[in-house]
Amino acid sequence: MIRKKIILIILDGLGDRAVETLGFKTPLQYAHTPNLDSMSERSSHGLMYPIAPGIRAGSDTAHLSLLGYEPYEVYTGRGPFEAAGLDMDLEPGDIAFRCNFATVDENMKVIDRRAGRIKSGTHELIKELNGIEIEGVKFYIKPGVEHRAALVMRGPNLSPQITDVDPHETGAVVHEAKPLVPEAEKTARVLNKFVKLAHEILDKHPVNIERKNKGLPPANILLPRGAGMVPHLKKFEDMWNMKGACVVGTPLIRGICKLAGIEPIDFPGATGSYDTDMRGKMTKAVEALETHDFVLVNIKAPDLAGHDMKPVKKVEVIKRIDDAIGHLVDILPENTVVMITADHSTPCSVGDHTGDPVPVLLYSTDARRDGVRFDEVSCAKGTLHLCGKDVMPVLLNAANRAEKFGA
Amino acid sequence: MIRKKIILIILDGLGDRAVETLGFKTPLQYAHTPNLDSMSERSSHGLMYPIAPGIRAGSDTAHLSLLGYEPYEVYTGRGPFEAAGLDMDLEPGDIAFRCNFATVDENMKVIDRRAGRIKSGTHELIKELNGIEIEGVKFYIKPGVEHRAALVMRGPNLSPQITDVDPHETGAVVHEAKPLVPEAEKTARVLNKFVKLAHEILDKHPVNIERKNKGLPPANILLPRGAGMVPHLKKFEDMWNMKGACVVGTPLIRGICKLAGIEPIDFPGATGSYDTDMRGKMTKAVEALETHDFVLVNIKAPDLAGHDMKPVKKVEVIKRIDDAIGHLVDILPENTVVMITADHSTPCSVGDHTGDPVPVLLYSTDARRDGVRFDEVSCAKGTLHLCGKDVMPVLLNAANRAEKFGA
Repeated sequence: MIRKKIILIILDGLGDRAVETLGFKTPLQYAHTPNLDSMSERSSHGLMYPIAPGIRAGSDTAHLSLLGYEPYEVYTGRGPFEAAGLDMDLEPGDIAFRCNFATVDENMKVIDRRAGRIKSGTHELIKELNGIEIEGVKFYIKPGVEHRAALVMRGPNLSPQITDVDPHETGAVVHEAKPLVPEAEKTARVLNKFVKLAHEILDKHPVNIERKNKGLPPANILLPRGAGMVPHLKKFEDMWNMKGACVVGTPLIRGICKLAGIEPIDFPGATGSYDTDMRGKMTKAVEALETHDFVLVNIKAPDLAGHDMKPVKKVEVIKRIDDAIGHLVDILPENTVVMITADHSTPCSVGDHTGDPVPVLLYSTDARRDGVRFDEVSCAKGTLHLCGKDVMPVLLNAANRAEKFGA
Repeated sequence: MIRKKIILIILDGLGDRAVETLGFKTPLQYAHTPNLDSMSERSSHGLMYPIAPGIRAGSDTAHLSLLGYEPYEVYTGRGPFEAAGLDMDLEPGDIAFRCNFATVDENMKVIDRRAGRIKSGTHELIKELNGIEIEGVKFYIKPGVEHRAALVMRGPNLSPQITDVDPHETGAVVHEAKPLVPEAEKTARVLNKFVKLAHEILDKHPVNIERKNKGLPPANILLPRGAGMVPHLKKFEDMWNMKGACVVGTPLIRGICKLAGIEPIDFPGATGSYDTDMRGKMTKAVEALETHDFVLVNIKAPDLAGHDMKPVKKVEVIKRIDDAIGHLVDILPENTVVMITADHSTPCSVGDHTGDPVPVLLYSTDARRDGVRFDEVSCAKGTLHLCGKDVMPVLLNAANRAEKFGA
């Protein structure tokens, strides 16, 4: 029994619905995909509900589900995964937030939610804020790209059950975090104190004085949102007895992998955007197989086209993915299992995630060849019917890595 | 993202098995259904287990499951739903029964289980019985059509775990209710006292003296059956954030809807029988969409044909349903999701409900078109594989009404 290695390719938001302008086909049905078709001839297929039928998964909850975690247990909000994606040191029980550097006027009204997409200076701005302690709760901040940052609260008896400080719109006054349950009162109170204190410090900061002098909007406030508690995730390697790596561009998915103990393989071409280097990602994934048993690849572009409600763009993205799959097949080492699927559907008719099932392709030299094409409709006739939690057991089985239960 | 409205059409007992006289097709496979076929061309399909594979669902437990309730938690017997269907005021914890007015002789032997299908007088008969109190338990009765009625016991420490008083056959002596668990001893004892007292009152009642004088069988006893405890059902609107209505003819399903807070739209054409006005039901459903987000339509006729073991009759019923579906398509407002399915199978070869899966058709303008026909066999090749509990999430998803879980 040859133990094989595994590449799991997640085409973010790939699933779609009937698009009138494409003759009521989905973009994946419509697209010319010779390389995927060729792989399909040697593969098994099916449909998968990332969490459960009809459930609209986020990219985060879906990736957790596909990697074998129970999202209803471990997921309380996006913050911890964004913070982990920025390589912050996190401890189970920490409360983490996504954050924007923003611009407010003297009445705390938001002038610019992104502080003019501030390009530099955020590392200096946070120096005085990092480590501030209020009522025994310590605050840690790490800047991301442009105006983005993550904020962490560490201390006893904290709760993620609070509302956002970020009002999510320009012209609105900054919100006070409110507790959604009585146990969260302290968390909300301490966070509100921090936001006020940070504003006082930032408003007078030399970086911002210089920005004002230049006519640029000052990054004079931090607007936290998406509170979540850092979960205690069992390590991926302990769960599945495989050393894992990932090639992903988006900090959110990178953060999930980091918290799971899956090693990110960073390279500049992985942008998490339309311009991402898809062929480069495949090359990196194959290289990672030399030192790892399992590589997760995420390609964000189909999701972007779905959110943008642009079916023709989505077809183009799929064609580029097909090209990258052709490259993967060219360089794929023997004894590798490949699954190609999505974390959720992002139909162009909706412009957001939906709970429609996603297609699955499972390639292996001895895969049952079910003669089905890789799209949302044809895959229904394939041999696999899965939910997200089945993905890892099915992959381990295909790779001859699963433990036998019984004799 | 357009939030759509929803019509859920439940063709009661539609599912069937291979019928030899139909060339081993099911009635649905055999029937000519041009309107359903045309709708199918624009729809997704699948098979659904109303509760779980092989589980023989009642219409009540299946409807509960499809509406998002856990039947194993909320269902202890048919009585509460029948009582609610007769618009009785119920409180969680009440024990409710279906009841027949019947005729017994002086030895309590059943002469006629339906008291000659008594046409009038039952409202007078129950006047002296309503509100009787025995050992702190109050009794309430409401007559239904002909000999039918519902009985409710209200008081502390009652249990539905008792056997039927109704012996279910002519010539048998009326049974005493027996406790199935020690906690039900009081309930059985008090019910038996009530049945005896009611018999004494009814036997001397002027309505019955007049019936005897006319040579009609007196309605001189109440025979309760189907004990169940009124469950605390979370309101449908609170569960799914939709205002619900229903167009149903059968009191049992009407009662489930009432207990769930789904508003019954009554009209004389909805008879719950073969002669029901199917086109009229579709018209009422579409009208209800003006004031509601979700409308459940139940058509009982296919189940009757299955119980009657008449496949040709079932084919005829299906053709009439197809005609009504054509009418629905003609009047269907834009931005409406339609699901057509069944609550269970009632195969003509069996004459009762079975646990075979039922076909599902999901129509929406952007539904994935899986090119499958709406019948028990073709639907297996469709894109949906569901259990009853998935129906509401799948409908909410198709209608762009589901909350996203995650980011």
